[in-house]
Amino acid sequence: MGSIAIDGDVILYVGEVPEHFVCDAEIDGSGFVAMPGLVNAHTHSAMGVMRNLADDCTFEDWLFHKIIPAEGKLSEEDVYWGTLLGIAEMIKSGTTCFADMYLHMDSVAQAASETGIRANLSFGPITSNVRGKGLIVDNERLKTFTSRWNGSASGRIKTSMEIHSVYLYDEESITNAVSLAKELDLGIHIHISESDAELSMSEAKYGLSPVKAAHRFGVFDLPAIAAHCVKVDETDMEILKAMKVNPVHCPSSNLKLANGFAPVDRLTELGVNLCLGTDGSASNNNLNMFEEMHIAALIHKGYGKDPISMPAGRVIKMATENGAKALGFENTGRIQPGYKADIILIDVDKPHICPVHDIKSAAVYSFQAGDVDTVMVDGNLLLKKGELVGMDEGLIMSKVREIAGKL
Amino acid sequence: MGSIAIDGDVILYVGEVPEHFVCDAEIDGSGFVAMPGLVNAHTHSAMGVMRNLADDCTFEDWLFHKIIPAEGKLSEEDVYWGTLLGIAEMIKSGTTCFADMYLHMDSVAQAASETGIRANLSFGPITSNVRGKGLIVDNERLKTFTSRWNGSASGRIKTSMEIHSVYLYDEESITNAVSLAKELDLGIHIHISESDAELSMSEAKYGLSPVKAAHRFGVFDLPAIAAHCVKVDETDMEILKAMKVNPVHCPSSNLKLANGFAPVDRLTELGVNLCLGTDGSASNNNLNMFEEMHIAALIHKGYGKDPISMPAGRVIKMATENGAKALGFENTGRIQPGYKADIILIDVDKPHICPVHDIKSAAVYSFQAGDVDTVMVDGNLLLKKGELVGMDEGLIMSKVREIAGKL
Repeated sequence: MGSIAIDGDVILYVGEVPEHFVCDAEIDGSGFVAMPGLVNAHTHSAMGVMRNLADDCTFEDWLFHKIIPAEGKLSEEDVYWGTLLGIAEMIKSGTTCFADMYLHMDSVAQAASETGIRANLSFGPITSNVRGKGLIVDNERLKTFTSRWNGSASGRIKTSMEIHSVYLYDEESITNAVSLAKELDLGIHIHISESDAELSMSEAKYGLSPVKAAHRFGVFDLPAIAAHCVKVDETDMEILKAMKVNPVHCPSSNLKLANGFAPVDRLTELGVNLCLGTDGSASNNNLNMFEEMHIAALIHKGYGKDPISMPAGRVIKMATENGAKALGFENTGRIQPGYKADIILIDVDKPHICPVHDIKSAAVYSFQAGDVDTVMVDGNLLLKKGELVGMDEGLIMSKVREIAGKL
Repeated sequence: MGSIAIDGDVILYVGEVPEHFVCDAEIDGSGFVAMPGLVNAHTHSAMGVMRNLADDCTFEDWLFHKIIPAEGKLSEEDVYWGTLLGIAEMIKSGTTCFADMYLHMDSVAQAASETGIRANLSFGPITSNVRGKGLIVDNERLKTFTSRWNGSASGRIKTSMEIHSVYLYDEESITNAVSLAKELDLGIHIHISESDAELSMSEAKYGLSPVKAAHRFGVFDLPAIAAHCVKVDETDMEILKAMKVNPVHCPSSNLKLANGFAPVDRLTELGVNLCLGTDGSASNNNLNMFEEMHIAALIHKGYGKDPISMPAGRVIKMATENGAKALGFENTGRIQPGYKADIILIDVDKPHICPVHDIKSAAVYSFQAGDVDTVMVDGNLLLKKGELVGMDEGLIMSKVREIAGKL
């Protein structure tokens, strides 16, 4: 029980608010639980347009016969609407910050900028088309994207460089990209060791695991968001720790695509800043961080036969302050004076949350996305009584259904 | 797109409804998806009073230091309110039918009877108190319970006999109980092969696995609901198949208590009638069958490294018609003429379900409990626009909070 006082975009008091503090506006939070907004540290939010398009099939079938052909049909405008759909879903389920990498990143940035959500958006300068000897690193487009968006929207938008993975490119293009990232002072967002196939390809290509290859190419000299980290051995994990890499655990996607179980307990033991992400809705099939927390807390207990694995408090930390730190947002992800006012209110007056013997357990094992009542980012209301503020949900869904029709 | 016509408690037409059919009442289902009500084939619904009381701890700590002491404090009336809480949660999340075993089963039956939900309720006649040489089978209390409740509430309530497990009792009490069940024409609801500890105890006691022991004691001569079936070998599974036992997969509970992964693909391959259940809220920590379907569909793909494992359609069948069949309710669990009008409507006009490329995938991977708009059992409305009909949710929660206070 207590109050939270906010001044502008920053939390001023938590618990007792002094009498001299005068509010312009007040939100009655009786019967609600306040928690830091959730941070989805790895997604491709526009992939919602492909939600439930390709399920219960092999990875090859999923990627080459369903997803890639569908992605080929997506225009810049489609990605804009797809991202808005993803942001609508994220805000409604309590996510206030996300890390995205995708096609047409200007459209993603436009959508994030307009809606008031916080985001780290990564642009991939390495083109997939092989021309001549190597892959092309497009300095100019990256520079344009960076100067347009990095630090924009009062700092809500940060940009990074996407290096999709080590196996898809070659050493020269990756080291060129890394030099450019250093020049522009950008972090990296990369997929690392998601699947056995990726591991084999990396070993065949470089004689090294994806982590070791990325390390040799200098990727980890920069702040890095490393999605998945499922197939990592002890040396890989020591590199991740030593280089202060931020691995993002994506349990739903890892299960759905049959990649398995990331060694999250060992990573935590090593003191790595482990985060949580949904991955895209084509492999999840949603962007629901409450569900992701729940699944993360459950599966490792069963897999490692350890009921103490991934306790609720740790999972919440992964989904809040660890994520914010990884995405480069300082003083974000906690409800504490001096921190950004990225706060969500949960309506706990519901049969499936009653009684509340332990609030952290309730958050991880019992809260549902639909329990989110209020969402604010930088002190601005984005969700009020479960309804989006300033976003036309009906229009977004109708646009997305049109796009889906052509996939 | 189409209509469903209901006459009394039965579905009359699905799709096209002939012009001569005149309705007394109509529900506008535009924008909704109709599906059969979900069947929670194994739970202890009153355990909601212990929700989030004991998490992230060892099984011993959970059971002996937290759950059993708390259960010792529960009165008949507490179980009545706890069951109402569970039923409220189940109806709100689309469950129309459940199988329960617990203490004070008269209270459970009273609650189920009043609320309009369908249930198979099992009474355990074997007392846990050892007196003299063996355990006591209480014929009289079982007979009273059976005659009072079996077939009551227009057939919505069926009763079974609980045999908690083979390891907890002795051969004589189990065979005595089985004779009595035969005499009263009752099915059995039993925990089977949930944990390694159970397996060891059964082997130490009888020289047999729990499945083989139960089989030898005649348990499977009767229709049986067998919760968990995690630690079953090939011979066990062949027995389950041959004896037409109905195993109930409880993935959340099996993960949370670190028991692992039931061999669901092999059981399905053998043609066993596999069902789905939440177990109690002390080991889940909710009764949300949409979440249970989602987790069941995801985890075996990752564990067995098989992305085709547990496809959406199969999981839906487990959670509907397989469950209804296991619980002894004929013509229940499908939307089909001649079947019971146990139907739920899902509001799919939401960002996290948009677009609907595949409706079965959407149901398993994207629907959330909060999307359930309408629930009917036997043609009677139990949930309307997300609100319970005829249940005082506020009163139930306030009673449960009082009970929780003393645990």
